[in-house]
Amino acid sequence: MGINLIPKELKFFDFFIMEAENIAKAAEYFKCSLKKGTIADDVVKKMKDFEHEGDTLCHEIVDSLNKTFITPIDREDIFDLANTMDDLLDLINAVATRMKLYKLDSSDEYLEQFVDAIEQSTHALSNAIKHMHDTKRMRRVQEYCIEINRLENIGDQIREKAIGHLFEYEKDPIMVIKWKEVYEVAEGTLDVAEHVAKVIEGILVKHG
Amino acid sequence: MGINLIPKELKFFDFFIMEAENIAKAAEYFKCSLKKGTIADDVVKKMKDFEHEGDTLCHEIVDSLNKTFITPIDREDIFDLANTMDDLLDLINAVATRMKLYKLDSSDEYLEQFVDAIEQSTHALSNAIKHMHDTKRMRRVQEYCIEINRLENIGDQIREKAIGHLFEYEKDPIMVIKWKEVYEVAEGTLDVAEHVAKVIEGILVKHG
Amino acid sequence: MGINLIPKELKFFDFFIMEAENIAKAAEYFKCSLKKGTIADDVVKKMKDFEHEGDTLCHEIVDSLNKTFITPIDREDIFDLANTMDDLLDLINAVATRMKLYKLDSSDEYLEQFVDAIEQSTHALSNAIKHMHDTKRMRRVQEYCIEINRLENIGDQIREKAIGHLFEYEKDPIMVIKWKEVYEVAEGTLDVAEHVAKVIEGILVKHG
Repeated sequence: MGINLIPKELKFFDFFIMEAENIAKAAEYFKCSLKKGTIADDVVKKMKDFEHEGDTLCHEIVDSLNKTFITPIDREDIFDLANTMDDLLDLINAVATRMKLYKLDSSDEYLEQFVDAIEQSTHALSNAIKHMHDTKRMRRVQEYCIEINRLENIGDQIREKAIGHLFEYEKDPIMVIKWKEVYEVAEGTLDVAEHVAKVIEGILVKHG
Repeated sequence: MGINLIPKELKFFDFFIMEAENIAKAAEYFKCSLKKGTIADDVVKKMKDFEHEGDTLCHEIVDSLNKTFITPIDREDIFDLANTMDDLLDLINAVATRMKLYKLDSSDEYLEQFVDAIEQSTHALSNAIKHMHDTKRMRRVQEYCIEINRLENIGDQIREKAIGHLFEYEKDPIMVIKWKEVYEVAEGTLDVAEHVAKVIEGILVKHG
Repeated sequence: MGINLIPKELKFFDFFIMEAENIAKAAEYFKCSLKKGTIADDVVKKMKDFEHEGDTLCHEIVDSLNKTFITPIDREDIFDLANTMDDLLDLINAVATRMKLYKLDSSDEYLEQFVDAIEQSTHALSNAIKHMHDTKRMRRVQEYCIEINRLENIGDQIREKAIGHLFEYEKDPIMVIKWKEVYEVAEGTLDVAEHVAKVIEGILVKHG
């Protein structure tokens, strides 16, 4: 049993690592695109590609789960982790989609701060996931989770400044509606990253 | 023990089937009412009746749970399934309530598309629930869950078209606020249906 | 084992009681501050203090969890309860923060009704938590949970009246956006309190 088990155990972590790296790549690509200016059709298309890749990985994890008898961590935790990471990618994508939909042609300093924090958060997540399979590195995993929580707090602060500025200087209610939502989705992305970190911490708590 | 157990096991599924059918009926009734025109007081009242029926069923499930020692699926999953289905019905109801509250006298093509998708999604859910007690029909249950996920994706597309159209043609910010929220609640309904499907898939994963 | 276990078991409940009391105190303080008028800087600061105290307690619970082998209730439930209570406090705080951010100088009758309901809900929660460790008082705990659910329904009704009034009398779209969000966050607070009650009920279901 032992010999057959090891590759199966590794498989889940391999999928998780691929799922996390795909998210980090999407966040990095989005950040670079925003710096260049307009969110054009090709950016939206490329972001959709990341989303589909994420969906495929998430389904492969759930499929493997249905075929595997013994799993390294609880089945429901594998399921939760795959799904909350999928939510995270959907939300990063939602920032891009809203900008395009609302015809917001360029970024601003607040959105850039958000997208910086999102990129850092997805990298911390990717690192946390990479260390999860090694029970000796639990402290490292926890440190990455703390980093994700820290970035969520930063997100709250950016949001406060961004919304304060918006209501102070933007007098067109339609523009207020549009930008307010873009900021909120961006901040929500950091919230969902924190939620993924909580799922990871919950797994550590069980196996601690 | 065996003989006494069977009716108890069936009881939970019976309640779930009744809860799911009540939701499908509410969605169907709402769709028909919208087609007729204004959401009048009697429609809101009738929708409230469905919601109360759903609350009663949800409480009966939790009560049975507190009185039953052995359950066919994990206690916490029964609890989650009853509660997320209750959330779904609340949200269908919220679409009706918002229209009345915002004095939106008639539907539009986007809302009709949403309500069509919601009705289909609740029927797929009702079918998924009906097949859940039969371990030989797990593939069927999964197919209904995939259908619910498909309709959630359709919901995203309707939302994008609806919101794009709204910002293009509606110049009154107050009307933008009102319709934007109605569309968002309608889309949120399909999200929650997908969440119920995930709870079902999570149960399949455990018992697969 | 027995002798060492008892203080450990009590510890979790002690932390939960402290966490719940801190929330109830925050809700009470906020209610009194609103009655006095403007949400000034010192009120926002004091609310932040409650939030930090809550964060500290939540972290202490998770830390104890990582150090304790046997727990009185399931590890994941302890984790969920600590975290959802933390969400509740964050949301009460969000009402205060939004008012300050949006420069809304004074309360209105609807917000006062919300804050009354929030205070009652947090007190019911604090009472529920206090009785949770005593298996003979499960009925009492359930009654407090029902009270929290009742207040969530009241919240829905306040919201409906508040939003109806807002769209009827407030003609400035920017003010509509601001007040609508304050009402929604206030109502969301009662939703999250109901969610905490569901976590408690879920624990009762397991141990019932």
